[in-house]
Amino acid sequence: MSDGLHFNETLYPGVQVSYTCDEILYQEKTEHQDLVLFSNPVFGKVLMLDGVTQVTTADEFIYHEMMSHVPILAHGAARDVLIVGGGDCGLAEEVLKHASVDKLVQVEIDGSVVDFSREHFGDFNQGVLDDPRFELVIADGIKFSAETERRFDVVIVDSTDPHGPGAVLFSEAFYRNIHRLLTPGGVLVTQNGVPFLQKQELVTSIERFSRIFKDAAAYVAAIPTYFGGHMALGWASDNPDLRRQVVSVLEERFRAADFTTQYYTPDVHAAAFALPRFILDAVEEGRAKA
Amino acid sequence: MSDGLHFNETLYPGVQVSYTCDEILYQEKTEHQDLVLFSNPVFGKVLMLDGVTQVTTADEFIYHEMMSHVPILAHGAARDVLIVGGGDCGLAEEVLKHASVDKLVQVEIDGSVVDFSREHFGDFNQGVLDDPRFELVIADGIKFSAETERRFDVVIVDSTDPHGPGAVLFSEAFYRNIHRLLTPGGVLVTQNGVPFLQKQELVTSIERFSRIFKDAAAYVAAIPTYFGGHMALGWASDNPDLRRQVVSVLEERFRAADFTTQYYTPDVHAAAFALPRFILDAVEEGRAKA
Repeated sequence: MSDGLHFNETLYPGVQVSYTCDEILYQEKTEHQDLVLFSNPVFGKVLMLDGVTQVTTADEFIYHEMMSHVPILAHGAARDVLIVGGGDCGLAEEVLKHASVDKLVQVEIDGSVVDFSREHFGDFNQGVLDDPRFELVIADGIKFSAETERRFDVVIVDSTDPHGPGAVLFSEAFYRNIHRLLTPGGVLVTQNGVPFLQKQELVTSIERFSRIFKDAAAYVAAIPTYFGGHMALGWASDNPDLRRQVVSVLEERFRAADFTTQYYTPDVHAAAFALPRFILDAVEEGRAKA
Repeated sequence: MSDGLHFNETLYPGVQVSYTCDEILYQEKTEHQDLVLFSNPVFGKVLMLDGVTQVTTADEFIYHEMMSHVPILAHGAARDVLIVGGGDCGLAEEVLKHASVDKLVQVEIDGSVVDFSREHFGDFNQGVLDDPRFELVIADGIKFSAETERRFDVVIVDSTDPHGPGAVLFSEAFYRNIHRLLTPGGVLVTQNGVPFLQKQELVTSIERFSRIFKDAAAYVAAIPTYFGGHMALGWASDNPDLRRQVVSVLEERFRAADFTTQYYTPDVHAAAFALPRFILDAVEEGRAKA
């Protein structure tokens, strides 16, 4: 994986993103995982897990803003939010910018990930762990979602790719659990890969969403370190109107929320649901299979 | 540049995209340029010039569709179209899909590039060179645009990055030439780099557009091999309404044009003008400087 002072992402056979490493900040190589945190002149701190880029300080804002503000402002009255995964807490930081959110529960399977993020990613998760609205539950997301009696308006699944330990967070059983713990008209959003290179991931999720929710869809964001053009973010709700909010309504809600962003705008929110033809084809293929 | 069976893009210090090379199809290394065409398992044929990816058969459709169908369908009555650069003829192919286009002039400085593309990129430019509406002019784009008495409804500048020989295609003098040869209410679109990594390129173009045109703007597309999130495409016109065409009008025009696409849709067209906050900031910075 390391080539002198470089780390290469090894997600795709045939193409790799190679990052110059100025300094290794942390490294842990066990039989279970190969984790490295290093600094790069373009992306700041880069976290790689088993050769796959997880998060960087320079472009985390895109993914985290689009995974949080889109469902919360589309919903318009989200008080209880659940994050499954999201160990770096960058998503939690964005969710908690909404004063209207009363409670944010984050279910993370591995407590050490959160300790790690507190230590190394304070740049973007500062304050989250001390916010009284934030409740960290160290538990298996599948088990938690199957058993909890709590209900949520917005559920955000911030998972790794559907290989290895993260694969269960893409299962139909898990999506059924999430459906059960959403309040009526609530919304689920998920990380769904880069369709240009991982089309099947999107097709399969849409197929599974479609069997459970009235509205199964996707929206997009362009995130530099998730190579391959647009990343697809999955969207599932029993309220089909949620993803068709008009811009003027979103603008009013965003103004009321009263914080600044680097990627999200109400226009970008609405535009993110306009899917490039080949991504729309994947979504339609998934719906047709259901 | 070559590392065993890999070619690395060397555009940015700190991060490189590394492509596996299955086979070198053509290579030319002179004192002026280092050109290589190779096959890659993900992207098909990849053309690199001086370490910068120019075009690949797998994702060329995104750039070419968005550089052509957006201005032509926004305009609605484009009969005469000019391409400056665009040696691979992938853009010409898309422009000529519009039966409403009577004449396409392509000004390319180096005739051998077109011969090269005819030989190696027949996959996507087939038919262009035999289309009677296509006129290839081998000339310097600056000189042509300063001297021609012809007028065009849409001008598309398909240049390399603003370094080396391609830099003049980003000059204010060149944009003034283009303004002169546009019909009233015509539109210029340009390749304007990846703002996440090349912000200044966009700021400078918008500044220059703003001194000449009534409306200076940008729109975006996410193109896998142009690493770094969205690519910005520059937009300049004396008719500010052109980039605010409503989707229903675009849908009607696209239906009438009667061809299929892999990325472009009328929804995607309208959405492409919704700029992420940090890209909008760069556009506004350019406008303020003018």
